[in-house]
Amino acid sequence: MAISNVNIDNIPEIEKMRHTASHILAQAVLKYYPDAKLGIGPAIEDGFYYDFEFSEPIYEEDLEKIEKEMKKIIDDNLPLTQSYMKRKDAEKYLKEKDQKYKLELLKDIPDKELSFFATGEDAFIDMCRGPHVQSTGRVGAIKLMSIAGAYWRGDEKKPMLTRIYGLAFKKKSELTAHLELLAEAEKRDHRVLGKELGLFIYSDLVGKGLPLWTPKGATIRRILERFIVDEEIKRGYQHVYTPDIAKIELYKKSGHYPYYKDSMYSPIKVDDEEFMLRPMTCPHHFEIYSSQKRSYRELPMRIAELAKLYRYEKSGELSGLIRVRSFCLADAHIIAMPSQAESEIHKALDLIEFAAETFGLQPNKDYRYRLSLGDRTNSEKYYKDDESWEFAENVLRDVLKERKVESYEAPGEAAFYGPKIDIQMRNILGKEDTAFTVQYDFVMPKRFDLRYSDDNGEEKEPIVIHRSSIGAIERIIAFLIEKYAGVFPLWLAPVQVKVLPISDEQAEYARKVTDRLISEDIRAVLDDRNETLQYRIRDGEVNKIPYLLIVGNKEIDTNTVSVRSHGSKEIGLMKVDELIQSLQKEIENRS
Amino acid sequence: MAISNVNIDNIPEIEKMRHTASHILAQAVLKYYPDAKLGIGPAIEDGFYYDFEFSEPIYEEDLEKIEKEMKKIIDDNLPLTQSYMKRKDAEKYLKEKDQKYKLELLKDIPDKELSFFATGEDAFIDMCRGPHVQSTGRVGAIKLMSIAGAYWRGDEKKPMLTRIYGLAFKKKSELTAHLELLAEAEKRDHRVLGKELGLFIYSDLVGKGLPLWTPKGATIRRILERFIVDEEIKRGYQHVYTPDIAKIELYKKSGHYPYYKDSMYSPIKVDDEEFMLRPMTCPHHFEIYSSQKRSYRELPMRIAELAKLYRYEKSGELSGLIRVRSFCLADAHIIAMPSQAESEIHKALDLIEFAAETFGLQPNKDYRYRLSLGDRTNSEKYYKDDESWEFAENVLRDVLKERKVESYEAPGEAAFYGPKIDIQMRNILGKEDTAFTVQYDFVMPKRFDLRYSDDNGEEKEPIVIHRSSIGAIERIIAFLIEKYAGVFPLWLAPVQVKVLPISDEQAEYARKVTDRLISEDIRAVLDDRNETLQYRIRDGEVNKIPYLLIVGNKEIDTNTVSVRSHGSKEIGLMKVDELIQSLQKEIENRS
Repeated sequence: MAISNVNIDNIPEIEKMRHTASHILAQAVLKYYPDAKLGIGPAIEDGFYYDFEFSEPIYEEDLEKIEKEMKKIIDDNLPLTQSYMKRKDAEKYLKEKDQKYKLELLKDIPDKELSFFATGEDAFIDMCRGPHVQSTGRVGAIKLMSIAGAYWRGDEKKPMLTRIYGLAFKKKSELTAHLELLAEAEKRDHRVLGKELGLFIYSDLVGKGLPLWTPKGATIRRILERFIVDEEIKRGYQHVYTPDIAKIELYKKSGHYPYYKDSMYSPIKVDDEEFMLRPMTCPHHFEIYSSQKRSYRELPMRIAELAKLYRYEKSGELSGLIRVRSFCLADAHIIAMPSQAESEIHKALDLIEFAAETFGLQPNKDYRYRLSLGDRTNSEKYYKDDESWEFAENVLRDVLKERKVESYEAPGEAAFYGPKIDIQMRNILGKEDTAFTVQYDFVMPKRFDLRYSDDNGEEKEPIVIHRSSIGAIERIIAFLIEKYAGVFPLWLAPVQVKVLPISDEQAEYARKVTDRLISEDIRAVLDDRNETLQYRIRDGEVNKIPYLLIVGNKEIDTNTVSVRSHGSKEIGLMKVDELIQSLQKEIENRS
Repeated sequence: MAISNVNIDNIPEIEKMRHTASHILAQAVLKYYPDAKLGIGPAIEDGFYYDFEFSEPIYEEDLEKIEKEMKKIIDDNLPLTQSYMKRKDAEKYLKEKDQKYKLELLKDIPDKELSFFATGEDAFIDMCRGPHVQSTGRVGAIKLMSIAGAYWRGDEKKPMLTRIYGLAFKKKSELTAHLELLAEAEKRDHRVLGKELGLFIYSDLVGKGLPLWTPKGATIRRILERFIVDEEIKRGYQHVYTPDIAKIELYKKSGHYPYYKDSMYSPIKVDDEEFMLRPMTCPHHFEIYSSQKRSYRELPMRIAELAKLYRYEKSGELSGLIRVRSFCLADAHIIAMPSQAESEIHKALDLIEFAAETFGLQPNKDYRYRLSLGDRTNSEKYYKDDESWEFAENVLRDVLKERKVESYEAPGEAAFYGPKIDIQMRNILGKEDTAFTVQYDFVMPKRFDLRYSDDNGEEKEPIVIHRSSIGAIERIIAFLIEKYAGVFPLWLAPVQVKVLPISDEQAEYARKVTDRLISEDIRAVLDDRNETLQYRIRDGEVNKIPYLLIVGNKEIDTNTVSVRSHGSKEIGLMKVDELIQSLQKEIENRS
């Protein structure tokens, strides 16, 4: 039904099967709710859905009987057959069945004859263009997952229908594997873990999409920020701080306003001027670059900043730390001579690969590169300058050839100012998303009239490379929470060690050990609460503390602690000094 | 003239003298510019001014002849005598003299008889209430300083007059000392040094009052930020990150809006909601505190943040890094039981004194404490709760009694929510300004319904201590630039060491030494420019680099460098290893 203007011959078998599953769902629903009105029921990634209007609300627990009926229909292996009705007959038929939404759809279809699909001997008939599998028996393994509200035709002013989601795979084993992945993904969901581990909160009074980092989450953030700033400085970046707001004129000059207007927040009036929360840092960095005359000796100039940025997201699209309304980007703009571009892009990718490796992310397994190209024929979407596009795309292509990371080309995915290399990260469900990006820009230097004098004293125009090293702090932390399932490596763990005296008798020793660890820059906490040892060990495990140190009288006598690493792994007795050395080494190695 | 509704008997001699100096200035001006119209001419701190309307512009170089004439009038030791005119006669007199501004002033004076002062035998007559010194000879040492534009009666819609500023002291030696101080202050002016040393810039396109920190300034800022964050964490503060914007409702709840509205920027519309750039952090921190139930075991909870804040300043009041429109405050809110207040305030002051000492600021010499009290009779300005005021003021008083730092009490200087201790810092000119503050708050806990359960499980209301440790980063850096006259101590210096090869022959060795220093976390830069050694040494001095390392062939042979510290102090040959150790020690000691 949802498929229109599509060559239906090209639709893969799995999609046909998923679409057929939606018909089976509608048939099963009508068995229990004969007066349900049907909306649409397309195939989607991993499954299908169908939208219904019920005369009274249904609940998740109702899905069980519907699913059972669906399985019966699949077992019955009913054939699906297509037939055509004249417009008048189709209208009459749908009126008789009282299917008002189908009638509305019909009006939008220009065809004289309308396609219908019947399941079995008219057990279920739906106006639909298909295609479908031959019979219900060809639908493999299905599972109904959830119920959600959905506006008819996605329009807030139209009625809210009930959408039932289901999964459909060819084989039972594939469904099981997918369900296991979903369960794992749910367990790792950064929104859930973020709350459980007390890393960040939201406040209705502060606003949606604006996370507040609690002390534990703030610790992770601070360590990450210092890690990347220090690493960048080591690699020749010059870090700056620039204001989070600027006059609207700055964004008019950069072309972000009005071009990027829909992603920006409304202006703030100050006296007679209008200021904007900044959506990007580039124009600020160009102002620093242009604040004095620059010589080729100063290039490449790598201006970096941990920059707070503000971009408008619809309230319905906000999600945990992934989609927020304000985020902090590890941003940089490398201003270079064109001849330096290739080596600078290599260096930017070196840094990205180093950071990824530090987080335990492997090339080709966890991420690959995408070369996002422009389109010479589309001068509306892409700045017109064929020669520069040619040059820049070849530079990026050459860079990728030399690197060991798998890559592919994606035409029409470039920025308007030039081509880019996107680092495509795979999440636990195997979905790819752009995590970081290195962009070649030959347009902004013109807009901002950037200049340098070459070794002959002549004025030249540099190029700009926009890049993020670890992307937005919010997003990378969300990603890491899910990757580590909340069990952070020692260097990032907000609490690295908890010290648990068995009883009050060892409280003083436990306090001394804790203080000693703290003085050695280890984030240690004493848990001498009046609770059983078992309770406190369990609490340490739930909070995913890397190391629990248990101290009894034996430990006091030998100046040791009993070490237990996360996941109930007993390490055994260790001298306190020995432990400190070992912890410090692990922290230093970021392992 | 500017003195009204004041008991003129109480006016100190020095002020009378300065006011007389302004009459002398007017008299001297009229000698050279007989058609000048007179505005007002009050005594001010350190001197006086007079506003004039000239028929054609005058310039700084014209001040010389005017000053010369003033000195002549002083030498003539003319008597000042008071007389009264009836309103009509006064009007007639001023009209004859064509003094339109004086006529305007006359209209605002309700008296039937108007007071006039004559200098000498009617050499100069001015409508003025006085008081004055007896004769011009009693005016000590004067100096005309500058010319500025000033709107008549401070009103932008009225004519712009020309204001001439002058200094006046009893003795010549005092004037000389003050001029020396002014010269020193000018040399140390952070706006001038900030530009010379390349620490920050302003951009017209970004906006007034919004500094952009260049790499060098950003280095100082980053070191300071890490210093204070680490020190606070060591002292039990829990650092958080919270958004720089929040819904307007948050500030309505805190009472900042509309109470504090004039210092806030205009709202930002997002969908149907309005967001504000935050002027303070307290409500954000309270949201974190209240995000879960709190027990007395968690108190005191010291929530800290390096918080960007936005406060409206009129464009005319913006000044360098001191008055900006956005600043980053080392802020904290200590939520505590009332019984913990005294010890927490001591700890907050301990931290402040520690930071001050680190910067080389001495108690009693560079700063003293001010106990800022409320006023029980003014319930409009101060929250009405006599008992809480009594308790809180006594807590602060007790704290100050126990400390070694000089202090004084200032009634009517409290915050509306409670009394505070202000750290009053003296600048080079001896002027005092509040640098940091520790505030006792018994109002916000009520507004935000803050709670903790005590050891009996009963719900109680905590108190809040608002405090800043090193204040706003912008302001403390401005202060430090001026204090150090740009010569930062090693740990803060953006570039710590420059390596200067005598000639190309030593370039490779110089590069090696530089790389070695960098790998040991020392901010070293190689200066192998094609310039004479003298030129490069001079450049290093101008840029106030703490150490210059000069290398010639002798140094290569002995694996040493020739060390020269800022201010042409030759230290002599040092082994590279020895130098590194010595530098690292100096950095670690922050000396």
